[in-house]
Amino acid sequence: MGINVGLLGLGTVGSGTAKILLDPEGRHPLLRQITLAKVGVRNLDKPRRVEIPADCLTMDLESIVTDPAVDVVVELLGGLEPARSLILKAIAQGKHVVTANKAVIARYGDEIFTAANEAGVYVLLEAAVGGGIPVIQPLKQALGVNRIQAVTGIINGTTNYILTRMQREGGDFEPILADAQRLGYAEADPSADVDGLDAADKIAILASLAFGGRIKLSEVYSEGIRHVSAADITYAKGLGFVIKLLAIARRHAGGEDSVEELELRVHPTLVPESHPLASVNDVYNAIVVEGEPIGQVMFFGPGAGEGPTASAVVSDIVNIAATLVSGQGREVTPKTANPLLACSHQHYCKVSPMADIVSRFYVRLLAKDEPGVIGKLGLCFGDHAVSLESIVQTGIHDDGAEIVIVSHEVTEANFQTALDEIRAFPEIASVASVIRVL
Amino acid sequence: MGINVGLLGLGTVGSGTAKILLDPEGRHPLLRQITLAKVGVRNLDKPRRVEIPADCLTMDLESIVTDPAVDVVVELLGGLEPARSLILKAIAQGKHVVTANKAVIARYGDEIFTAANEAGVYVLLEAAVGGGIPVIQPLKQALGVNRIQAVTGIINGTTNYILTRMQREGGDFEPILADAQRLGYAEADPSADVDGLDAADKIAILASLAFGGRIKLSEVYSEGIRHVSAADITYAKGLGFVIKLLAIARRHAGGEDSVEELELRVHPTLVPESHPLASVNDVYNAIVVEGEPIGQVMFFGPGAGEGPTASAVVSDIVNIAATLVSGQGREVTPKTANPLLACSHQHYCKVSPMADIVSRFYVRLLAKDEPGVIGKLGLCFGDHAVSLESIVQTGIHDDGAEIVIVSHEVTEANFQTALDEIRAFPEIASVASVIRVL
Repeated sequence: MGINVGLLGLGTVGSGTAKILLDPEGRHPLLRQITLAKVGVRNLDKPRRVEIPADCLTMDLESIVTDPAVDVVVELLGGLEPARSLILKAIAQGKHVVTANKAVIARYGDEIFTAANEAGVYVLLEAAVGGGIPVIQPLKQALGVNRIQAVTGIINGTTNYILTRMQREGGDFEPILADAQRLGYAEADPSADVDGLDAADKIAILASLAFGGRIKLSEVYSEGIRHVSAADITYAKGLGFVIKLLAIARRHAGGEDSVEELELRVHPTLVPESHPLASVNDVYNAIVVEGEPIGQVMFFGPGAGEGPTASAVVSDIVNIAATLVSGQGREVTPKTANPLLACSHQHYCKVSPMADIVSRFYVRLLAKDEPGVIGKLGLCFGDHAVSLESIVQTGIHDDGAEIVIVSHEVTEANFQTALDEIRAFPEIASVASVIRVL
Repeated sequence: MGINVGLLGLGTVGSGTAKILLDPEGRHPLLRQITLAKVGVRNLDKPRRVEIPADCLTMDLESIVTDPAVDVVVELLGGLEPARSLILKAIAQGKHVVTANKAVIARYGDEIFTAANEAGVYVLLEAAVGGGIPVIQPLKQALGVNRIQAVTGIINGTTNYILTRMQREGGDFEPILADAQRLGYAEADPSADVDGLDAADKIAILASLAFGGRIKLSEVYSEGIRHVSAADITYAKGLGFVIKLLAIARRHAGGEDSVEELELRVHPTLVPESHPLASVNDVYNAIVVEGEPIGQVMFFGPGAGEGPTASAVVSDIVNIAATLVSGQGREVTPKTANPLLACSHQHYCKVSPMADIVSRFYVRLLAKDEPGVIGKLGLCFGDHAVSLESIVQTGIHDDGAEIVIVSHEVTEANFQTALDEIRAFPEIASVASVIRVL
């Protein structure tokens, strides 16, 4: 029994996917039973990085998702539409779907998985998070026997590249972003990456799998790296930290009610140099999963790129093919679906408001160089139950004294209230930066 | 449909496995369909770390593997016998098997998988390598679409603990081994760990999965860490390296014949500080997989311990349960077996002799403090086509001069021939250490 794949999109990842499917030698033997039957493109005449038989190519994407001969539709178009509609049509036609489209899954996962469960098909998305790194499958399978406590990741390669260069070169954000754009590591409009939106999409997907519930993307707190300065990186280094854009999903160490809540947040973070994520540099991604009883495991690898992402896409195709050839047949009803591949949860996770989050904070202030300022700051934080680890005047500039403060663990609400009062102090010229500490 | 598990062994990992199975709340919903039906122990009256219903416990291990009600036999006895015989009997009875027994699989994998394929059952072994780290499943599934080029790992926690402490404390092997034994990180008879035999078992298993062929354990070169000294660690650090016990399986960059060969070796290795494995410390394990087109991915986590290893065991049980409940039925014939769970390869991999391996070398020599020694060494290496990166007299001791040499990439045969000649030089008191460089 052969499996026919219909591929939507022949960009970077689509080309990589086609290359693997057309060249099975030396790979998993199951690939020999998989045929690239149809490839949908926007322009038939564009030069290709991979040679596709002419009778496979079509500009009629809809004909692929409705083709009775196609078993698995692989959506690699990117963007919200027509990707979402084509995925839903493929599902309605009883096709299994593989997608790398984090934006569509993070926004329309609810609709898509409900439709997939009704139609009895699988929707797999290993390539949507962490490029080639196998993390979705392990979360659904090997790690699922644990009570997951937290998933913490560096899951945006562009921002990790920028922060790594800022760290190495002592440079500021803007010139390094410009250079990253010139080198192709950042897009012309970099906001999805540098403002943390891409990482928010991805952590919503990881949290949904790790904690077995659906996530409203609007409830993921997201803060980018534009405000991280060379000075912050230098001070952080002196304190034994590196600054990384982390995406964090963790069970909230509850308040008084017993309803389980999740923390979901993306923000620059001071990471202790000894933490496994601290040495993940350049465009690499890494995801740390903590659970009971496994403890802490980390997955590390290339977070993007043609080859790695295509590897993840094809691994999903092979996973579906394996269930199809192993006697389970093409009809997968909700009753016969493999529970490690299907996505069956229906409820929404309750997400904690940021005000309830407990973390440590790093703050850099510019103040008038006057006696008594540090005492006044300490008192104000104390009034709001914010306990400090250190408060250090780090230097004198033309515009006054620079003061770096690191707090112990405090609630976001108490910390921000204290900071609002401090902003109004006549001695304080500005709060130059506020960064959470892992 | 419920799945009944028969557990053989209630030691550390057995207790951890029972704890997860008896406490499914908050874990994968499939665990609720899995029942711990029978538990085989050597002594009924021993105090337990987990409460097992009395009617589940038995000292008659054979009654478990022949019990018609048992679907999955979980072998956690350790050691070769009766583990091997009980696994084979379970298979003959049509039971699926989960094992953490690297020693049995590395030695009798051939016999066991042949029997399993004939009987149409699965034998899963995630816990045999890397404790809780999901690495077997990803190798069989997500990474299988790649052409794997190399698997390189720190897969023995005891030796990594000892080397990490030697590195941090500047101490020598023997006293730190003694301390590790006192603390329970090394066994009373430490040879399986410190002589590299445990790592050899594990790399044989990983290589078999990564390269799709069976491995003769006797063909895995294995060298332990007893001869690594504090001096070597210090010199390595000065050169930008840390010393790790690596297990390496890689496609051999062929000679003139086109037969594909594998390199399979366990030995202490100078690892560049920038390599992801260099920062894997203490009892942690990590495995780097390199393939085309994925590039390099790394899996990191706790390589042993009750909780992590039990997590891996239960993930295998759940994997089998998933195929059983998803309509595939209890009868898995070779034709209907899920090709991502089954182990179907039958041929043996051809393993390169060590003499053909190409690597860099670090050598520490003790020589008479005479002029001309360094020139003589350089000439001798040159005569055997061994090109050197550096040759440095690092100090003068009572017994002469200490010389540290680092070579470029050379064949093992050429290097060892040169070294044999050098050993016979009247100026050379001893070759204190020879360590390969990654």
